[in-house]
Amino acid sequence: MRMYDIINRKKRGRHLTKEEIDFMVKGYTSGEIPDYQVSALMMAICFQGMDEEETLHLTLAMRDSGEVLDLSAIEGIKVDKHSTGGVGDKTSLVLTPMVAALGIPVAKMSGRGLGHTGGTIDKLECFPGFSTSLTKEQFFDNVNRIKVAIMGQTESLAPADKKLYALRDVTATVDQLSLIASSIMSKKLAANADAIVLDVKTGNGAFMKTKEEAFALAEEMVQIGKNAGKQMAAVVTDMDQPLGNAIGNSLEVKEAILSLNGLGPKDFMEVVYALGVEMVLSSGKAATPEEAKELLMRTIEEKTALDKFAEFVEAQGGDKRFVYQPELLPLASIQLQVMNTEEGYVSRILAEEIGLASLVLGGGRLTKESEIDLSVGILLHKKRGDMVRSQDALATIYANDMEKAKEAYGRIVRAYEISREPVEEVSMVKGVIR
Amino acid sequence: MRMYDIINRKKRGRHLTKEEIDFMVKGYTSGEIPDYQVSALMMAICFQGMDEEETLHLTLAMRDSGEVLDLSAIEGIKVDKHSTGGVGDKTSLVLTPMVAALGIPVAKMSGRGLGHTGGTIDKLECFPGFSTSLTKEQFFDNVNRIKVAIMGQTESLAPADKKLYALRDVTATVDQLSLIASSIMSKKLAANADAIVLDVKTGNGAFMKTKEEAFALAEEMVQIGKNAGKQMAAVVTDMDQPLGNAIGNSLEVKEAILSLNGLGPKDFMEVVYALGVEMVLSSGKAATPEEAKELLMRTIEEKTALDKFAEFVEAQGGDKRFVYQPELLPLASIQLQVMNTEEGYVSRILAEEIGLASLVLGGGRLTKESEIDLSVGILLHKKRGDMVRSQDALATIYANDMEKAKEAYGRIVRAYEISREPVEEVSMVKGVIR
Repeated sequence: MRMYDIINRKKRGRHLTKEEIDFMVKGYTSGEIPDYQVSALMMAICFQGMDEEETLHLTLAMRDSGEVLDLSAIEGIKVDKHSTGGVGDKTSLVLTPMVAALGIPVAKMSGRGLGHTGGTIDKLECFPGFSTSLTKEQFFDNVNRIKVAIMGQTESLAPADKKLYALRDVTATVDQLSLIASSIMSKKLAANADAIVLDVKTGNGAFMKTKEEAFALAEEMVQIGKNAGKQMAAVVTDMDQPLGNAIGNSLEVKEAILSLNGLGPKDFMEVVYALGVEMVLSSGKAATPEEAKELLMRTIEEKTALDKFAEFVEAQGGDKRFVYQPELLPLASIQLQVMNTEEGYVSRILAEEIGLASLVLGGGRLTKESEIDLSVGILLHKKRGDMVRSQDALATIYANDMEKAKEAYGRIVRAYEISREPVEEVSMVKGVIR
Repeated sequence: MRMYDIINRKKRGRHLTKEEIDFMVKGYTSGEIPDYQVSALMMAICFQGMDEEETLHLTLAMRDSGEVLDLSAIEGIKVDKHSTGGVGDKTSLVLTPMVAALGIPVAKMSGRGLGHTGGTIDKLECFPGFSTSLTKEQFFDNVNRIKVAIMGQTESLAPADKKLYALRDVTATVDQLSLIASSIMSKKLAANADAIVLDVKTGNGAFMKTKEEAFALAEEMVQIGKNAGKQMAAVVTDMDQPLGNAIGNSLEVKEAILSLNGLGPKDFMEVVYALGVEMVLSSGKAATPEEAKELLMRTIEEKTALDKFAEFVEAQGGDKRFVYQPELLPLASIQLQVMNTEEGYVSRILAEEIGLASLVLGGGRLTKESEIDLSVGILLHKKRGDMVRSQDALATIYANDMEKAKEAYGRIVRAYEISREPVEEVSMVKGVIR
């Protein structure tokens, strides 16, 4: 078998066999097949696509390039959740304790963020002492005992995907649907939960700008997961404005705690419930979406989710007092209000601009080595549909540097689009694929 | 400017600017832009193509990546000739002295062959003492004095093309028309003759299998040359069977000498005259094709071309006795006849199989380091259209190794296609583009 022929066959629109795909993934991971052949193949795939079978084989080959977790030490049906990423997305922080409070085991691998804010792990480090450096035994033990644990993602999962993604990133071959789907799913399949619930974002702040693209990606990932023997669901959700009101690590943790106290922003909670319903359904704890939602709402009303969150923070070394006294969380010293100038209704908030404003403030990472400032961020006071008058505060900037605050200010002003006409309400959930 | 954006723009079907193309070619030649980005761009070009302007800019950028010859020391209109390559193509050996005998300066850069037989330089080395290692002064001086000189192609011409071609060769991105055209033309423009005559082969033994592809390539190259200020002509010629009867270095030199004596195979001479007419026309030595052909025929009848060939061989250190006594040229010791088994008419001779038979015998190079055996080869006794009876000799194999001769035998038998019906004669010249 020769890599040249594999490139040539795909270029001519032929179907690649399992053997060819395995040969490519193994050869590339081991360094026997050079970058320049693989990038040519990736570009050919951008034009010719991959069918369901090829996509599955690529996903499985990348999964099998590293460790596949053995979760058999954890009792029950393990449920995992993944988001394609958006601005203000603190869903995991709320959803994880809600689901765990219902006795569903959540064994989550999380990453640090690269981009506008930190990842789930960065956010949890707002709690002094909190650590995700668990041994596998501690991890399994925590899940069995309190139903939830979060561990830093190991380098050993799907190394082929990591190498391939880095190459695609510099050769303009990232945006092919089957390549995106197989990249995400290879890591999820290596993490090896029984059921996987996907949150596929769509809108100006998402990777998938249109609903059509988002549904196509959701369907492709659900299909891969099912073909690999997993229970699957995907929820396509709105990212035409940031999710919730808080953007920035500490601010998002505060908003998560508010949400666990029943005071979550409406748009955010709509997404939390939609994803939670799928997680509860796949665990078998409820038979209908209505029943699942009922169960989830009760974890908020009865504060069992809040207590579960505190228990989880404590179990991983964090100070649980912060959960009950979120005012203890660090907040930046400069607080600058962004003022509105024209009367009307908020029609859009460009999530990408808000994300960049957070990055400018120091809330995110430009490179893996960057230090994150947990205390900075943006709190939005007006969201899509809200009526705004001149001199209303649109948002508050939390900063530790006045120059950076000013730069963020400009971006936030640019992000807000104000219309003269009232703006229709749109559903946060565009659809569910099971 | 970032290479990423250049790849991405071409992937989306956008037109690349001169600045972008220059940036890519310079960056790649200097090693600042990595292979894997360039191979992705090449694959995107395979799908999106390049327009006339992009193709010209790529060609000129590659030309300017190295030395551009200054031929001003040579008097008159310098004419160059290039063939896209085929089996049995010894055209240059005959055409060069014919044209030079008319007083048209031929300053030719030639390469060594990689493939079924040697290149022009390898063939000329059949003359003991012959050398193409001339200084530029010797080269110019020879052309001024006797109107013809051949020099080994220097490494300094279009190094960007060399590097890019090597990359395309291993990434299945060779067969894109504009890339092929710019690759050939970058070297021709660096060699810098005033007029360039192209022989574009088409058929089973050529790179361009169909007439449509061959014409498209011919047109693209003529257009590039004109845009670069050169006088251009391209002749599309048949390669559905080997050209002439001889394949192999020594055998081809003998056939060239026979041709200069007026005994050339009909198909071969048809191509020689078609190309020669274009060379004479572009030199201004004749006003019409008929007049040009008349002049060329006279160089054969009056043996001025044969004498010019001897003069040329001698001027470059070769033994000119061999030109007048071609029986002195080395011939392999084993001579094996390939016998026909079925009655009928030769309808096709797969040129590629014949080429491989020559390679098997040792007449060509598999790698740059291979040694060539000048004495081996194949002499075809039957060509397309010929009637053949059982037990007629189709060809004679000249070999120095019985095992290799046997392998070649099988290939030659497979190359011949015999039909029951008489085969119509086809013209060797499919068309001329000026």
